[in-house]
Amino acid sequence: MATFTVDEFKKRLDQTKKSMEAKGIDVLLVTDPANMNYLTGYDAWSFYVHQLLIVIGDEEEPIWVGRGIDAAAAEHTTWLNHDNILPYSDDHVQSTTKHPMDFVSRILDEKGQANKAIGAEFDAYYFTAKNYLQLTKNLPNATFKDATGLVNWIRIIKSDKEIELIKRAANIVTKTMYKGIERIEAGVRENDVIADIYHTQITGTDEYGGDYTSIVPLLPSGDQTDACHLTWTDDKFKNGDPVILELAGAHQRYHSPLARTLVIGKPTPEMEELADVVIEGIEAALDVIKPGITAEEVELAWRQSIQKRGYEKESRIGYSTGLNYPPDWGEHTASLRPGDQTILKPNMVFHMIPGIWLDAYGIEISETFRVTEDGCEVLADVERKLFIK
Amino acid sequence: MATFTVDEFKKRLDQTKKSMEAKGIDVLLVTDPANMNYLTGYDAWSFYVHQLLIVIGDEEEPIWVGRGIDAAAAEHTTWLNHDNILPYSDDHVQSTTKHPMDFVSRILDEKGQANKAIGAEFDAYYFTAKNYLQLTKNLPNATFKDATGLVNWIRIIKSDKEIELIKRAANIVTKTMYKGIERIEAGVRENDVIADIYHTQITGTDEYGGDYTSIVPLLPSGDQTDACHLTWTDDKFKNGDPVILELAGAHQRYHSPLARTLVIGKPTPEMEELADVVIEGIEAALDVIKPGITAEEVELAWRQSIQKRGYEKESRIGYSTGLNYPPDWGEHTASLRPGDQTILKPNMVFHMIPGIWLDAYGIEISETFRVTEDGCEVLADVERKLFIK
Repeated sequence: MATFTVDEFKKRLDQTKKSMEAKGIDVLLVTDPANMNYLTGYDAWSFYVHQLLIVIGDEEEPIWVGRGIDAAAAEHTTWLNHDNILPYSDDHVQSTTKHPMDFVSRILDEKGQANKAIGAEFDAYYFTAKNYLQLTKNLPNATFKDATGLVNWIRIIKSDKEIELIKRAANIVTKTMYKGIERIEAGVRENDVIADIYHTQITGTDEYGGDYTSIVPLLPSGDQTDACHLTWTDDKFKNGDPVILELAGAHQRYHSPLARTLVIGKPTPEMEELADVVIEGIEAALDVIKPGITAEEVELAWRQSIQKRGYEKESRIGYSTGLNYPPDWGEHTASLRPGDQTILKPNMVFHMIPGIWLDAYGIEISETFRVTEDGCEVLADVERKLFIK
Repeated sequence: MATFTVDEFKKRLDQTKKSMEAKGIDVLLVTDPANMNYLTGYDAWSFYVHQLLIVIGDEEEPIWVGRGIDAAAAEHTTWLNHDNILPYSDDHVQSTTKHPMDFVSRILDEKGQANKAIGAEFDAYYFTAKNYLQLTKNLPNATFKDATGLVNWIRIIKSDKEIELIKRAANIVTKTMYKGIERIEAGVRENDVIADIYHTQITGTDEYGGDYTSIVPLLPSGDQTDACHLTWTDDKFKNGDPVILELAGAHQRYHSPLARTLVIGKPTPEMEELADVVIEGIEAALDVIKPGITAEEVELAWRQSIQKRGYEKESRIGYSTGLNYPPDWGEHTASLRPGDQTILKPNMVFHMIPGIWLDAYGIEISETFRVTEDGCEVLADVERKLFIK
């Protein structure tokens, strides 16, 4: 552990308990791996089996529940006392006879919480329908409440220490993006470029190493640039191909994502225009950012800018980011889109990624920024342009 | 697409429909990304938003449902007709006002399925409690049934084409494991070794490239080898450290996992003995494998072997593997453990990973094998020993 002080973890826990109280939740089950890390430091690739934290409003420490062979990881990485690390036996794993939520139900019962208001992250990736059904069956006297996003919304404002980690991630993504752009050329296999991207991402710098990113590098090229979440193949790049690179740097699970588009050979006038429109739009949006503005007002600045040029885009143009685990580096709180009235505050961090996809190709150019006391700070340092190779 | 023929996809779909019929399921919602890929070829890093297939028993093709900006990926990677690719609008994404399951419910209603028996993968990673609650609220006349594992159990026997992809993955993991072992030494940062591991994994061979693996390389070292799912840090390896390497090769989403343990410097006699015990146990288990034996009998051969040497291990020693997406390369079907009476058949593929963890360190040595007509075939080609650097 040791990245954050126990005091910082306890402050996060206090905020969580305040939010629980405001929502009438006595006990919170925290399944989102980023939220588990945020409250305790827990860090291991063990979220492929059921695991969670039990936060009881009137008990000092959360309880970690997970698979037996992962208890050692909880001892190594969290600030929790040994007595609050409660592993279940291995015959609960992917079994049709025993479910880990039976074990969780017994703990809640033993702790006198079986008739309380229990909050759970109903729409978090790893809180399955089966978890819900098993808990509600085992604890018929409890009231279950949807607590999706409760801890995420506390995460939205970063501490200075968290910002430091995100800036390290930004330095890594700067190096990585330039490496990717340098290596892409006609005749080179896509996977060979990705191999060098990974190498740069994980090597990091001389002072600090890179962590795995919660989304793998995305690299659609040619006529597949209309499909933004394709990964890569072992096909070779071709002359004339547009290529979209979306990737992040990560350090100790904190992310700084970035996208750029390049063309191998000569871009068409349409591509050049589309890139201009996207860059102008990003700059218009970055210009309006300061504490007090809402998320939807940032999107409006973008939209008005591209409308002047005759373009429209339906999807959101950005989201809060930072600490995360696969499959997403987005925080699932504020989005830069119409209707989102989140007020921006200092030390919020967003990935603004306003791609425009036409029928035959797309352009993605993005920035990750921190809201400062009087504006915003773009974190990576990669030229904002359509790259031409 | 084009890795598999449309005929192979249709055969898989037929098997799925037969299994649905046997279980009294009229409509199946398929959320597990590996199952979505298995039935349609769909391949994109888009499972961080809600997406699924609707398989209607008496309709020829499945329906793909996902986010608007991912419809292009469905067009590129699946065999489905354009009319069966149904994207929802972007304001459903991580929103508190609209949920993608509302969109799914409307489709089911329009297709006349609102009063049918609907199967869903209740315990799959991406089928959240919220999905269940939203669907059951919207479709009060439907009967919901747990269909966890329905498609997974069809995946357990691989076609020859699938075995070919897994063997490619095995060639990649052989190269990658040797690269990792070569690079580990005292004074080298863990992340620098991982950077080279990724590079080798993704480069693949001259004939075919590597894909991302569903679990990142795991590299606990020193006193952290008791915690098998730790990833890596930027600390330097130290003389005397035991190091566990668990990683996979992947090709077109098919995996071949492998683990080895090494010691930097001189192993203690206890480590050497523990490695011997594990290797003997693996060999005893591999020896008994042939079609007709059960999963639990394979584990029994391991257990009897280590018991002779005075050791016990609680957790399962292996699981079916192949096609997958994060966070797991395990298939969630058969496990090599007591009580699992799955009968082994030709072209099943398992990762046998019988680690033993003591208080201060652990030894993991594993093999991925294919069940053949009369025995088994180990897929990677890495010496089975405790490596010493």
